[in-house]
Amino acid sequence: MGFYNYNLTIDKILDYGSTVYGNKEIVYRDLRKYTFSSFRKNVESLASSLQKIGVKPGDKVAVVDWDTDVYMTAYYAVPMIGAVLHTVNIRYPPEVMLKTVIHAEDRWAIVRDEFVPLLEKGKSFLTNIKGVITYSDNKEKVKTSFSTFDFWELQNSGEEVKPVDVREDAQATIFYTSGTTGDPKGVWFTHRDLVLHSMSVALTTSKPPLKTSQDDVFMILVPMFHVHQWGFPYVTMLVGSNYVLPGRYDPAMEINLMKREKVTFSAMVPTILYMILSHPEAARNQDVFKGWKVMIGGSALPSGLAYMARKSGINIAVGYGMSETAPVLTVAYYTPEVEKLGEEERFLQQIKTGVPIPLAQVKVIDENGKEVPRDEKTVGEIVARAPWLTRSYYKDPERTEKLWKGDWLHTGDLAIVDKLGYIRIVDRDKDSIKSGGEFIPSLILEDIISNHPKVGEVAVVGVKDEKWGERPVAFVVPKGDVKEEELREYLIKHVNEGKLQKWWIPDKFIFVKEFPKTSTNKIDKKALRQTLSS
Amino acid sequence: MGFYNYNLTIDKILDYGSTVYGNKEIVYRDLRKYTFSSFRKNVESLASSLQKIGVKPGDKVAVVDWDTDVYMTAYYAVPMIGAVLHTVNIRYPPEVMLKTVIHAEDRWAIVRDEFVPLLEKGKSFLTNIKGVITYSDNKEKVKTSFSTFDFWELQNSGEEVKPVDVREDAQATIFYTSGTTGDPKGVWFTHRDLVLHSMSVALTTSKPPLKTSQDDVFMILVPMFHVHQWGFPYVTMLVGSNYVLPGRYDPAMEINLMKREKVTFSAMVPTILYMILSHPEAARNQDVFKGWKVMIGGSALPSGLAYMARKSGINIAVGYGMSETAPVLTVAYYTPEVEKLGEEERFLQQIKTGVPIPLAQVKVIDENGKEVPRDEKTVGEIVARAPWLTRSYYKDPERTEKLWKGDWLHTGDLAIVDKLGYIRIVDRDKDSIKSGGEFIPSLILEDIISNHPKVGEVAVVGVKDEKWGERPVAFVVPKGDVKEEELREYLIKHVNEGKLQKWWIPDKFIFVKEFPKTSTNKIDKKALRQTLSS
Repeated sequence: MGFYNYNLTIDKILDYGSTVYGNKEIVYRDLRKYTFSSFRKNVESLASSLQKIGVKPGDKVAVVDWDTDVYMTAYYAVPMIGAVLHTVNIRYPPEVMLKTVIHAEDRWAIVRDEFVPLLEKGKSFLTNIKGVITYSDNKEKVKTSFSTFDFWELQNSGEEVKPVDVREDAQATIFYTSGTTGDPKGVWFTHRDLVLHSMSVALTTSKPPLKTSQDDVFMILVPMFHVHQWGFPYVTMLVGSNYVLPGRYDPAMEINLMKREKVTFSAMVPTILYMILSHPEAARNQDVFKGWKVMIGGSALPSGLAYMARKSGINIAVGYGMSETAPVLTVAYYTPEVEKLGEEERFLQQIKTGVPIPLAQVKVIDENGKEVPRDEKTVGEIVARAPWLTRSYYKDPERTEKLWKGDWLHTGDLAIVDKLGYIRIVDRDKDSIKSGGEFIPSLILEDIISNHPKVGEVAVVGVKDEKWGERPVAFVVPKGDVKEEELREYLIKHVNEGKLQKWWIPDKFIFVKEFPKTSTNKIDKKALRQTLSS
Repeated sequence: MGFYNYNLTIDKILDYGSTVYGNKEIVYRDLRKYTFSSFRKNVESLASSLQKIGVKPGDKVAVVDWDTDVYMTAYYAVPMIGAVLHTVNIRYPPEVMLKTVIHAEDRWAIVRDEFVPLLEKGKSFLTNIKGVITYSDNKEKVKTSFSTFDFWELQNSGEEVKPVDVREDAQATIFYTSGTTGDPKGVWFTHRDLVLHSMSVALTTSKPPLKTSQDDVFMILVPMFHVHQWGFPYVTMLVGSNYVLPGRYDPAMEINLMKREKVTFSAMVPTILYMILSHPEAARNQDVFKGWKVMIGGSALPSGLAYMARKSGINIAVGYGMSETAPVLTVAYYTPEVEKLGEEERFLQQIKTGVPIPLAQVKVIDENGKEVPRDEKTVGEIVARAPWLTRSYYKDPERTEKLWKGDWLHTGDLAIVDKLGYIRIVDRDKDSIKSGGEFIPSLILEDIISNHPKVGEVAVVGVKDEKWGERPVAFVVPKGDVKEEELREYLIKHVNEGKLQKWWIPDKFIFVKEFPKTSTNKIDKKALRQTLSS
């Protein structure tokens, strides 16, 4: 009665999107298509069915799937009834994946047919699981040895959600992120976190140069298990853009899907962009990249790749964040000063780490907690505040203590700041190389090497050295025939131009055919280091 | 220690704006100019000085001023230290104004020189006031019989704000709004209300057709005492637009200020737009209106005026809300369906009441609480939810009870909905006319009459009638020579075209030179009705 205590819950976003943008579309490959308003009906049907089969507020619901419409329906339906969406990392080794499901104490699972065997293997450990909801694309029923429900049946029940009092501070999601050591850490977010993050990202991408609007078509090439696909399944409802889901990763298919659905905006890690642009299908379809707006995050963008993208007519803006930050903290959108620059200078700002998005507070601080000068030289750590950061690692107070110190979230990322206020990451703390007591910024090295015309991808890591403590080694995926001497000369040229220090030049260049990747498609530096020490 | 509990407080908006848009400007006429970052320093100096002179969290601080830089500084500095900004309606009769200051229990006042005598007159009643901060544009000190401080001195102290724990649910502002009967009602908002409202309005105005960005220059022609100038002093920090403050209302000065500062976006009530466009200075400066983006709110926009604006090249979008809703609930921005329409049809949508802005939930319901069909005929009441609505009228539970019923805020506004989902107000409940038991939508009548080439402004009110209960009477401000018969014939033509009912035609047309206006520049229908009954 009386005053309505409005909670910032996920259903509010869906209500807005389906009301104002009811005819916009969610497209799953060439298989299924929904308008926002029919999608909303599906979400509500699924939510009510989940209530009916016994899913209770606070219950964790694992989703084990590629990037599909089924997944997207769960993004809304699970939190809507107060349950918690666990977006399971399907690219973890089966044992690790299982561990996360056990650690999260998942009670239910929504599972695509091909992942059922995986679940069955772990059955003896999964004593918490009360029921499994399965589906296959061809809509045939998928049996399991668990208590099983058919997703399509639940989604088509057409029933109404029983009112449930979900508070904005209730947990909405959980997922796991790998650290340098130990088991993956559980990161979790509340409804409020996700709503505020979505509002801020929607406002940021409306700014130049991305300027996304209802005329855009989003296809996000970040797995749905990876920090809720950077929030875009929610953002799309606020912006009113069509939303294309690619299913399982496959560059050729994606290029053709882009073409068919007239995709205009994507987000991804650098590696995926590289794989798309260097795919044979790309050469045949250069027209689809013209004007494509791409937000890059997850790892620093090597400028070599950035120039390659630019040549294809792609409009890039880098974003930055981490699992713990929901994830976006900064985007390299245009401040007024940058907007006024010439095209080349503007481009160089767009591929930096960027400036804070609305409501985020991001600083680069020295050891005494003071902000570093805007001199593009002094290195500090990025620390952040925002109304959407994870409170703690799930059931892990020890590692939480290292994350939150003195009211700031410590990212462990090292960065410099330029005179226009743009942050640029120079290294992840855990990847940094200390040589003779001095710091070698591996990302700056990689950036320069990546610009060599015969270099495809590059990664610089530190290797133990008796004399210097550590020395840099460069791993290179060459484009064509390249010799170590060429790269060395190229770097010395940059030393002479004052762009790097001579003692930064790697002691060794190792040429490989491809890089080991993490489950979220970043270059796996840990694995590279291991090849050196073994 | 540890996790930072981020509160959605006003200072976060200022922090963002001054960080990313530090060089954007706040301009007060041709008198003073600040960058966002120097403005922030002023805000912090003022805030710390207020702390020093004894302003405590929870203290109410009245501001009695035109629309100035001083006012804008107070918008941030007062809430920042946990105090409450009372934006006093300076256009109330002195006695009513005084009543609001007493009712709000203001403890401090920031007063422009010319309003000091007004305050002195009420001195014997203002026993709560602990101190008065005065200023004059020429920076001379202004004495009062209260304990007096000089604004410029406080603002230039250069000291840092003492940390104060302001929670997002703390009250940030209060102001008074007039009802049909009784004393003005105190409406109040929390920090959180204002931050979320600002985020949503910023996102909305980024959408087509307004598409505001850092390239825009805002000049809001709504008094700063009127629902925090519709939130734009906060929105500007999120968008990064320059912000021009016009001081005291004067159409000729404003037109010249627009020209000098290259204003591109404004918001105002219809009457102000009419006064500007019909001012002789407008005819000489038609070029300044080309491409001017204008958000109209406060009253329904008569289409006659809308066409007049369009002829000058103005791009209009109507907004809707009320004091109790902070104020924005809907804006007539383009949904995808509307964006695809031809220019003329699109225009007709832009001048309706619009669709909900992000996070707002707005419905038009019948007496049983069910949404009316989208038939553009069935009239219902607009009810709303949003995370920024006033919880209650200050110290007035009785009238609060009529506002909040069954979890929805009841606006008392009557509206229809078209097939595209656009709401259109047809009457304010308190202004509605019942004739022979049937409802006559005064706003639709006004809309049609406003389109007659010889009509400047028009207002239709109900007058008691023995036979029918009530009958409509039209007040008209003519443009040139117009006869009642002409208007009657014109309306009969519209009856024949099926656009109105014959029995809606006013019984009487009364020609007047100008309309009485409310303190917020809306046509004062209450006063017009009184001229009939007296």
